[in-house]
Amino acid sequence: MAQRYCTQHQVHYYEGNTKGQMTLAMLINVALLVAGQQNDQLGVGATEVQRHGVGWVVTQYEMAIQRMPKVGETVTFGTVATAYNKFFCYRDLWVETLDGQRLVTIHSMWVMMDYQTRKMRAIIPEIIAPYEAEQIKGVLSRPRIAHVAPDKASAAQPYRVRYFDIDRNQHVNNSHYFDWMLDHLGYDFLSQHDIVHVVIRYEREVQYGNVPTSQYQKVATDDALITRHVIMNQDQRCAEAEIHWQPHEG
Amino acid sequence: MAQRYCTQHQVHYYEGNTKGQMTLAMLINVALLVAGQQNDQLGVGATEVQRHGVGWVVTQYEMAIQRMPKVGETVTFGTVATAYNKFFCYRDLWVETLDGQRLVTIHSMWVMMDYQTRKMRAIIPEIIAPYEAEQIKGVLSRPRIAHVAPDKASAAQPYRVRYFDIDRNQHVNNSHYFDWMLDHLGYDFLSQHDIVHVVIRYEREVQYGNVPTSQYQKVATDDALITRHVIMNQDQRCAEAEIHWQPHEG
Repeated sequence: MAQRYCTQHQVHYYEGNTKGQMTLAMLINVALLVAGQQNDQLGVGATEVQRHGVGWVVTQYEMAIQRMPKVGETVTFGTVATAYNKFFCYRDLWVETLDGQRLVTIHSMWVMMDYQTRKMRAIIPEIIAPYEAEQIKGVLSRPRIAHVAPDKASAAQPYRVRYFDIDRNQHVNNSHYFDWMLDHLGYDFLSQHDIVHVVIRYEREVQYGNVPTSQYQKVATDDALITRHVIMNQDQRCAEAEIHWQPHEG
Repeated sequence: MAQRYCTQHQVHYYEGNTKGQMTLAMLINVALLVAGQQNDQLGVGATEVQRHGVGWVVTQYEMAIQRMPKVGETVTFGTVATAYNKFFCYRDLWVETLDGQRLVTIHSMWVMMDYQTRKMRAIIPEIIAPYEAEQIKGVLSRPRIAHVAPDKASAAQPYRVRYFDIDRNQHVNNSHYFDWMLDHLGYDFLSQHDIVHVVIRYEREVQYGNVPTSQYQKVATDDALITRHVIMNQDQRCAEAEIHWQPHEG
């Protein structure tokens, strides 16, 4: 039975948006904090993993959101590594109310990156063992993300990578991609709609001083309002996402 | 004797900079959170204050920094309203290690803004009473901030106000001014220097969609390295700051 880890978190005003909801970027920040706490608890925290010359890198999230935690609300964040194969580790993260009502479910996919070669490596058995996740042979199916259609895309909005976007490991915290993707939708759209489902895939890192651009395409069907997003950096795709929305109920 | 309020805070990875220190913006966010908690505890929280048609607005901070809290460290944040006169309230905020060593001291100055007129109002006695701060006649002297000299200023770097810069009250969180001022100094300077003293004065609000610009001037004397900063918005000065630095010891 895979190891589970939970902790409580109170949502503070500076983690909230104009609607008094926790932002997607802060939700991912706290979810990753809790994942890191479990790593530490199992004796395979950042220091131990670095000792092997590798680091965990998230390649995608799929998120289902019943509702976002509210500013002032104390919620439970939890995580469990559900499965792994030779190259991928699948980890779930979630948010629940204190009485156990599920608010957010995140399926995430991770790889191990070699610090020297900056390439993917097979998952190191000693590092994955403590999670007691199920070892599987195949790969789990990944949710599809349709590309932004060039002829239907918004203008490309530049987002220069700033000093405070980079962390102690000199990487851009990947929660910033959400801010770049969403900000571009503008105040009216964002204040009138709530996110119900997100798939995001990370393909390439951006560096300090880069000026990635954000483009989106809106797709409205009879029963769904969808936005597709791409972050480009010097003609290379860095991240893509598909987000489902519903009208905001104030 | 004025009411004091303290609470503990652990610094998380997403609150840190490239040097593993809490950022100035996050330090102010948490300090204001703690101030807000004291307001609530004393029965004069945001809802009660809004009932009077006013809100507290900070007009300046003066900060002395022995060292910034580190990522992973648990520290104590505290606050006390030290004094007030007809229009101004003086409030101290601080950060200490768990064994009482002072890390950061912040003197802040507040006014009450009328929500309807957007103008300053005399401080409402019922709101200030619970703090048991000393009532004074005069005004406390304000630390001087020299203007950025136009002929010695850096280029003006634009920072468009983004959706996630605004909060539930539709205001730009004033901690963002620090990011705009500091980011412009660049990676090399910021990774090689630490802040020891800050004075910042807020003059005008910026709004969603505005594109304020950040300019700075470096002033090196025999025993100090100083940067002066100004945030301008459509030819109006929004904020000014003067920051003292020392070399970063890694």
